[in-house]
Amino acid sequence: MKKAGRPIIPRKTIYRLSIYLRCLARLRENAINTVSSEALAQAAGVKPTQLRKDLAYFGAFGTRGLGYEVNALSKRISDELGTSSLQPVILVGVGNLGLALLSYRGFEKEGFEIVAAFDAAPKRKRDKQIHLPIWGMEKLKNFVHEKNVKMAILSVPAAAAQTVANELMAAGIMGILNFSPIVLAVPEDVMVNNVNLAIELENLSYFIQG
Amino acid sequence: MKKAGRPIIPRKTIYRLSIYLRCLARLRENAINTVSSEALAQAAGVKPTQLRKDLAYFGAFGTRGLGYEVNALSKRISDELGTSSLQPVILVGVGNLGLALLSYRGFEKEGFEIVAAFDAAPKRKRDKQIHLPIWGMEKLKNFVHEKNVKMAILSVPAAAAQTVANELMAAGIMGILNFSPIVLAVPEDVMVNNVNLAIELENLSYFIQG
Repeated sequence: MKKAGRPIIPRKTIYRLSIYLRCLARLRENAINTVSSEALAQAAGVKPTQLRKDLAYFGAFGTRGLGYEVNALSKRISDELGTSSLQPVILVGVGNLGLALLSYRGFEKEGFEIVAAFDAAPKRKRDKQIHLPIWGMEKLKNFVHEKNVKMAILSVPAAAAQTVANELMAAGIMGILNFSPIVLAVPEDVMVNNVNLAIELENLSYFIQG
Repeated sequence: MKKAGRPIIPRKTIYRLSIYLRCLARLRENAINTVSSEALAQAAGVKPTQLRKDLAYFGAFGTRGLGYEVNALSKRISDELGTSSLQPVILVGVGNLGLALLSYRGFEKEGFEIVAAFDAAPKRKRDKQIHLPIWGMEKLKNFVHEKNVKMAILSVPAAAAQTVANELMAAGIMGILNFSPIVLAVPEDVMVNNVNLAIELENLSYFIQG
């Protein structure tokens, strides 16, 4: 985590910044230009003290009696998150889940562009048409270097996940959104966020048992 | 969380049980019948003491010198998670993400069946064909009652999420997998797991900044 010259913001705060950003976007859609910390906190489902503390990490303070300027605060948060400009992301593993993710149009709106897809069997027949070409793994390293890609979505089967993650890291990927149900071993300067839909459902399933 | 007569297992343990279950499935695919706690722990990326502690919550103990019987342990964990039989799940909100989730074939393998999809505009033209019919929201309550559905995937826009969540809970839904980027207000006996892919990417984006 190379954050030279910047304070380390806790991971949970970073998640909440994303939530605030979405609340601000909705205010903007409704042509609202300023918002109090109380109103923004309520929209985000947190306490006003939490909101003020989160924003203070990077010196965003409201004006007493006026609150925050919606556009300015949005920009400050985007800059902090590194999403002010479109971030290139590659997707590796074009099975069912990979296909579904490729066909999801929602990432771009949020500042992420899936720029290429890779698979061990790029020519395998798939039951859905996608717009991106699918490339073999041998093309990955050069692509990541040339396009300076830092983030990857990993949606390969569990058995292949660690090997592929190693290839990604060797190519220069620093952040992995991991959809494989295994715990990846990575060095400290590489960040992994795990998403496993079936595991989330299973977790719910446990708690709803009568 | 109505767990009468059963010990309360921590949420993180429940997540790890899901991981163990997947590791056991891979062992089974490789025709391996017994596994030591050390080997299973390593496959799951946890310490052996953690694994033994997690399994002890529901009285699953290995045999000294032999370890765990793969099939028996799988069954014990599935029973504990409530996924031994196919769980019906409804999906509400058939936008881009909802469509992608409906076309993902991976849930069934994991014990979950999306049995119906609901949307405020069921007849809206969608750019992908899906096999399930999409129904209007007015049909939701009866369906949930009749089929005794307890779990829902919520993929509606943020602005509608709380209102729709209220409808789900009024219909009897006890567990919500929430893809909307807001914090849902729910009573204590309803469980919400949040998944937001864009927020996960944003979070990575922050940490990979040079």
